Amino acid sequence: MNGAESLVHTLLASGVDTCFANPGTSEMHFVAALDRIPGMRCVLGLFEGVVTGAADGYARMADKPAATLLHCGPGLANGLSNLHNGRRAHTMMVNCVGDQATYHRKLDAPLTADTEGFARAVSGWVRTASKASDVGADAAVAVQAAMGPGGMIATLILPSDTCWDEGGVVAAPLPRVAPVPADPHAIGNVARLLRAARQAGEKVAMVIGNRALREAPLAHAAAIATEYGVALWAQGSNNRIERGVGRHSIPRIPYVVDQAVAALAGVKHVVLVGAQLPVGFFAYPGKPGVLTPADANVVVLARVEHDLPATLAALADELGAKPVAAQARDLTPPATGAVTSEALGQSLAALLPEHAVVVDESISFGRGLYPGTHGALAHDWLALTGGAIGDGLPLSTGAAVGAPGRRVVTLQADGSAMYTLQALWTQARERLDVTTIILSNRKYAILLGELANVGANPGRTALDMMDLGNPDLDWVKLAQGQGVDAARVTDMETFNDVFAAVNARPGPFLIELVI
Amino acid sequence: MNGAESLVHTLLASGVDTCFANPGTSEMHFVAALDRIPGMRCVLGLFEGVVTGAADGYARMADKPAATLLHCGPGLANGLSNLHNGRRAHTMMVNCVGDQATYHRKLDAPLTADTEGFARAVSGWVRTASKASDVGADAAVAVQAAMGPGGMIATLILPSDTCWDEGGVVAAPLPRVAPVPADPHAIGNVARLLRAARQAGEKVAMVIGNRALREAPLAHAAAIATEYGVALWAQGSNNRIERGVGRHSIPRIPYVVDQAVAALAGVKHVVLVGAQLPVGFFAYPGKPGVLTPADANVVVLARVEHDLPATLAALADELGAKPVAAQARDLTPPATGAVTSEALGQSLAALLPEHAVVVDESISFGRGLYPGTHGALAHDWLALTGGAIGDGLPLSTGAAVGAPGRRVVTLQADGSAMYTLQALWTQARERLDVTTIILSNRKYAILLGELANVGANPGRTALDMMDLGNPDLDWVKLAQGQGVDAARVTDMETFNDVFAAVNARPGPFLIELVI
Repeated sequence: MNGAESLVHTLLASGVDTCFANPGTSEMHFVAALDRIPGMRCVLGLFEGVVTGAADGYARMADKPAATLLHCGPGLANGLSNLHNGRRAHTMMVNCVGDQATYHRKLDAPLTADTEGFARAVSGWVRTASKASDVGADAAVAVQAAMGPGGMIATLILPSDTCWDEGGVVAAPLPRVAPVPADPHAIGNVARLLRAARQAGEKVAMVIGNRALREAPLAHAAAIATEYGVALWAQGSNNRIERGVGRHSIPRIPYVVDQAVAALAGVKHVVLVGAQLPVGFFAYPGKPGVLTPADANVVVLARVEHDLPATLAALADELGAKPVAAQARDLTPPATGAVTSEALGQSLAALLPEHAVVVDESISFGRGLYPGTHGALAHDWLALTGGAIGDGLPLSTGAAVGAPGRRVVTLQADGSAMYTLQALWTQARERLDVTTIILSNRKYAILLGELANVGANPGRTALDMMDLGNPDLDWVKLAQGQGVDAARVTDMETFNDVFAAVNARPGPFLIELVI
Repeated sequence: MNGAESLVHTLLASGVDTCFANPGTSEMHFVAALDRIPGMRCVLGLFEGVVTGAADGYARMADKPAATLLHCGPGLANGLSNLHNGRRAHTMMVNCVGDQATYHRKLDAPLTADTEGFARAVSGWVRTASKASDVGADAAVAVQAAMGPGGMIATLILPSDTCWDEGGVVAAPLPRVAPVPADPHAIGNVARLLRAARQAGEKVAMVIGNRALREAPLAHAAAIATEYGVALWAQGSNNRIERGVGRHSIPRIPYVVDQAVAALAGVKHVVLVGAQLPVGFFAYPGKPGVLTPADANVVVLARVEHDLPATLAALADELGAKPVAAQARDLTPPATGAVTSEALGQSLAALLPEHAVVVDESISFGRGLYPGTHGALAHDWLALTGGAIGDGLPLSTGAAVGAPGRRVVTLQADGSAMYTLQALWTQARERLDVTTIILSNRKYAILLGELANVGANPGRTALDMMDLGNPDLDWVKLAQGQGVDAARVTDMETFNDVFAAVNARPGPFLIELVI
């Protein structure tokens, strides 16, 4: 058995049975091993940003890691920005990066690069295998690291000789490291704080992230919030929120600094539950970086590594908070007329299929879509967590693989879509049930807003750098060119009809929604 | 004057007047400055790999650096693999990377990443500006570094407050650091070696790279080679070779290890002229890493930092080598019938426009194209120098900006083209004179060969991972979707007609050549 075979056997034994791949020469033994050993689903991406974004989407839905297969330092580099997003999402992932043979590296052949250096910036765990007999054990540790408390990206770099040399040893799966248990001390502290704040009439904001945004912990959070007058907030961008009818709705902290500051004004106590302290996405002259009031008291109930559902359950129990009514169905009919953010939100609320997975890279136009869909049928909402645009199409691709039988609906800004449009081909090849809605405004709308924020009166040069027209992108052709059926839509009536129809049939479809 | 304005003024004063850009929020003051200050041509790319590859192509043709404008760590990350190629090409480039404000970085907002870490792996020079009053001076040093001996990538990271704060100071251009002068000692050594080897009947190979592959030094190399029976070789992949009628032709060291070893068999002395010792692109079990014989004597005549044209001129003078006849016109008519690598080479030899710039990312199918075009009209040949595929379309885009009035012809494998297809949109917007030939075999042909090399008999899984069909990519639609006219061609007669016609008209065109 060679090293590559021990790698594949070990991954399978450890429960990793899906591999998103963009292989090259140095990974041919891995590919050959995948051929010989049954059980691994291999999904090809035509660009590495598709591969890493898809692995992120897969893990968010499957709650276990996929493997990736990438080619040398530059192949990893092409996947870095979606690994950055995955890191911010605390995504479980096992990157396998083929590289120059151990003894060839010193010759500095053209593709030789600082593979480990690239990996470190986005990975919680990095190792370069040194010999074939270690590869199985390395892979088992990588899976354990990826699946550890909170979840992380583990990157295993495989010099080609560690794959082709004989002497591979399959490693047994390592025990999964459980989340850090709920902390009774922190729970007691927060319970006392909530009681005292209610007594004193002081505003409390509870900011929630990661596993605390699933159905059961959100129900406990809602019970606590109702009982104690606490304002609940999800982080601005989240890996997965379980929401819609029967779940408990939660607003997100606004992206725009002034809106966030206004929303959090007067807060005396900030309780963090698997979330970071809310900060501005960027600094702006004369505006605060931290979005909560400067004099607010910040308390950590639990970090991302903790057992967040158990923590919120214990806090609700400690406080005697009674269950509250879940989100009711929004019975508003689909919108008609012109395409606006609110109209699209209204139609989505009416028409989202039950158990849909919504992937949201809608950027500026989409800010009305999340608030507008609280009353849709039960669904999950996956967002761009790291701000590195070009995540939506890959994330959807992987989410569809990780959640078979559920319709994936991608809310996708056009500018961001262009970064990783190759994902559409993978959707076509794998016949994935994805409906992509391209929000086609033919500009970087967010940047026009940001330019206005810096007080500039844009001239020709600036406008040209934010304009995706001249020539217009034709998303119907870009989709069809990759085997995905598509239609252009310019009004809500047609959108409603097309959206309902394509969600009911298998396979991918792209709607270019001109906005 | 704010920092951003001092940056733009300093770049212009230093001779940098072209900026390939994919800006984001943290670069809005830079964009506003570009708006207010005339003189900088801004070219928008819809993905950062387009931006960095275009800056590479520009510098190869213009012999001076372009600036790039990139957004934070992840924006830089998306450009890394073409920066890797640019590093291997010794390309002059000034990367400007906007980033979080100095005081905002500690808050770890979502887009915050290890920007400097990403930059170091691909840059010869990296600096993070610390205050507005230094930005001008930082920019002048960056240009000086980029234009130093041999050329390099200089990356200047600009926290947003260093751009928006007042107090910017325009810096005067710094003197250009000249190449290291030709070394009389090395020249004398090599002259003695060549005389002695001729005397002894020992085989000498001279391996040439970088600036030594321009017209004048190649004429001197040819004179020396003819007089002394030396085998001349260009490196396997080169930033720019001046060739065709009136120049002196030079073969490239083959990519395939066995072919390269055979070509260099029996060589007793290897003379390196601005080139690295030839090594295999990858290691293979049982094959050598260094391609020249193990017992060969390796002598460095000049490194890339040296004045390579002066070195070869001095060596020719020292040896009394007389000028030899230049390449004659190949009068073979364009090929007819089926599309093969040889047929395409024959048609290109007949039909390449004079002063064309050929960008070669043709990978496996294209190995016949370079040897087949020695006798074309005078042209330049730009290749993928770092092996990170996805360079061809961006490189062509930048080459067209850097060499106005010349036709750019891109020989582009389909699999590689998918990595950075967004470059077509920039070609359309800028109405660049680029003819893209997509070599459409709908597979990763090179990997099928490599898989065979490792002795595997490919099964379904492996074949699927090398197959770009199912569904077929439709390059006509992918081009038209971005505003580039296109046609599909399946035989040489039609190719000849279309190729000649589109080269004679302005603007971009894409030919999907089914092979």
